[in-house]
Amino acid sequence: MRAVVMRRSKLVLDTVPDPMPRPGEALVKTLACGICGSDLHALDHADKMVEAARESGAPFFMDPSRDVVMGHEFCVEVVELGRGTTSRLQPGDRAVSMPIMMRPPKIEPVGYSNEVPGGYGELMVLNAGFMIPVPNGLPTEHAALTEPMAVGLHAVEMSKIQPADVPLVIGCGPVGLAVIAALKLKGIEPIVASDYSPMRRRLAATMGAHVVNDPAQTPAIEAWRDAAKLRPAVIFECVGVPGLLDQAMKDAPRAARIVVAGVCMEDDRIRPMIGINKELALQFVLGYQPHEFAGTLDTLADGRIDVAPLITDRVRLDDVPQAFERLRHPGSQAKILVEPWRS
Amino acid sequence: MRAVVMRRSKLVLDTVPDPMPRPGEALVKTLACGICGSDLHALDHADKMVEAARESGAPFFMDPSRDVVMGHEFCVEVVELGRGTTSRLQPGDRAVSMPIMMRPPKIEPVGYSNEVPGGYGELMVLNAGFMIPVPNGLPTEHAALTEPMAVGLHAVEMSKIQPADVPLVIGCGPVGLAVIAALKLKGIEPIVASDYSPMRRRLAATMGAHVVNDPAQTPAIEAWRDAAKLRPAVIFECVGVPGLLDQAMKDAPRAARIVVAGVCMEDDRIRPMIGINKELALQFVLGYQPHEFAGTLDTLADGRIDVAPLITDRVRLDDVPQAFERLRHPGSQAKILVEPWRS
Repeated sequence: MRAVVMRRSKLVLDTVPDPMPRPGEALVKTLACGICGSDLHALDHADKMVEAARESGAPFFMDPSRDVVMGHEFCVEVVELGRGTTSRLQPGDRAVSMPIMMRPPKIEPVGYSNEVPGGYGELMVLNAGFMIPVPNGLPTEHAALTEPMAVGLHAVEMSKIQPADVPLVIGCGPVGLAVIAALKLKGIEPIVASDYSPMRRRLAATMGAHVVNDPAQTPAIEAWRDAAKLRPAVIFECVGVPGLLDQAMKDAPRAARIVVAGVCMEDDRIRPMIGINKELALQFVLGYQPHEFAGTLDTLADGRIDVAPLITDRVRLDDVPQAFERLRHPGSQAKILVEPWRS
Repeated sequence: MRAVVMRRSKLVLDTVPDPMPRPGEALVKTLACGICGSDLHALDHADKMVEAARESGAPFFMDPSRDVVMGHEFCVEVVELGRGTTSRLQPGDRAVSMPIMMRPPKIEPVGYSNEVPGGYGELMVLNAGFMIPVPNGLPTEHAALTEPMAVGLHAVEMSKIQPADVPLVIGCGPVGLAVIAALKLKGIEPIVASDYSPMRRRLAATMGAHVVNDPAQTPAIEAWRDAAKLRPAVIFECVGVPGLLDQAMKDAPRAARIVVAGVCMEDDRIRPMIGINKELALQFVLGYQPHEFAGTLDTLADGRIDVAPLITDRVRLDDVPQAFERLRHPGSQAKILVEPWRS
């Protein structure tokens, strides 16, 4: 099959062996797969990513010196079920899945594995038991956003935000926008969001932010303070570059909660005394629970969240390396979808 | 009066003007005042401390280029009440107080103020309304430990620890020992504590730790794991030197809460990816609420916490500089009390 391979920190379009479904697995066509900021990080900082996973006790992870087909935000179509596999899904059905595979004795993180390909290729294998049918009427490209939108829902759930709290979302890339959508779904008001990009500020408003701020004009915390008056703060750090956490801690009002949803793969410097003096709480978050993933698909299917505005481009496999380059200057993009079968 | 003055990062025994009580204030004799690790930090890193306080939005703080009489863990005796002050306290009564003074339009942090002296001098002034009588029968030197023990109670309250959780207390100086006492009071079991000093490990056991660990022999997290099996972790970082937080994050099991109770005045490096991969929560804590301070005095007075073992020395004003030096090699000390009137 054709696939975009991460090979020695480069993306290369190549022909690789078709994946083979084992019992309990399904062979699927990748209909659409979103490009995630983590994939850009992984391309630049694969060693750091692997080291952090190892230091965090992750049992299995990719070896970046070997080929990896990334891509973990996918909507697929069933081609065939592995031998002896029973499933409510039949060939031709569309599905999504959390990007993880049980292959005893190993667990494969789909998209960061040397053993199974992610969504930047024409075919994948998935555990049939993890696959969730896409409801009729939900477009494939919207279903592919289940994964990133679930990240936002999970961050909001982990924040334990209450109606009295006023959130500040720092950074309105896909993670920040998913957080805004989840906050809106929860009825939180007002939602304050901040981003340097005019396009992303427009998307933030579309997704439900009540106040959108340009930090080049006004510090984010000032915009928050104007909107929040003296209500408690929950700050969602959705950027993930060194220095942002220190800045958020410095800006945060007393007793604020800071949810670290931006994925910073590099070392970072903080000033503990600022955290201590203000009794700040930091909650690092990752991924989602299975029920959050499934629940997100439902919210997309029944129209409670409309992700259409988030899709800023759709590309073929040939265009993936160039799409990654465009995402390095992200002000003009939100989610770019890869469609491996697009002609 | 005689007082130990912090003057250009040195401690000097000197004669300074007697403080004068204003209306609403009491002039008091300092009967006993504990030396806090924060005072050692302040002597070495006064500029960092002031900068962090300013960056944290603290409205008032000391100017370290001017004289400061430190000392904020005190038990006092009322000498006289300021003009027009009504109080249930009368001259001769003993009292404790949170180390803070309202002197409109300013708030003075007692012990880190240029305007009012802390407990390393013979006399102080305090807001009469903040003073709490020491119950008959509670020795003065025990009452002086109300403040540091309240710090431990507050850290435990902020941790939101539940009976299912198993705490790990890293560092058994006064903060760690106060945390252990508060955990025991809450009925938490087992309490795992770790410190390099045999003396402090003995004190940890005395205060209620069920498992005491020597990290030179066994990593603290291994001792915790043996005791906790698969129960959730609440890690109390009670050391406060750079690198400890990164170590705690690296060691912590998934979804652990880390309570940062050690006061690290220097910049620190963390690896956000480790926090993200394990979805860690960090709670920075400082001080206590008024009800926690008052409640701690009660627990000392009714014998639910016995602080006698924590007092490892009692010194005169002359000996304060030398006591600070001894506390720099803290393995043989817990709490040293200064008794300004001791002959």
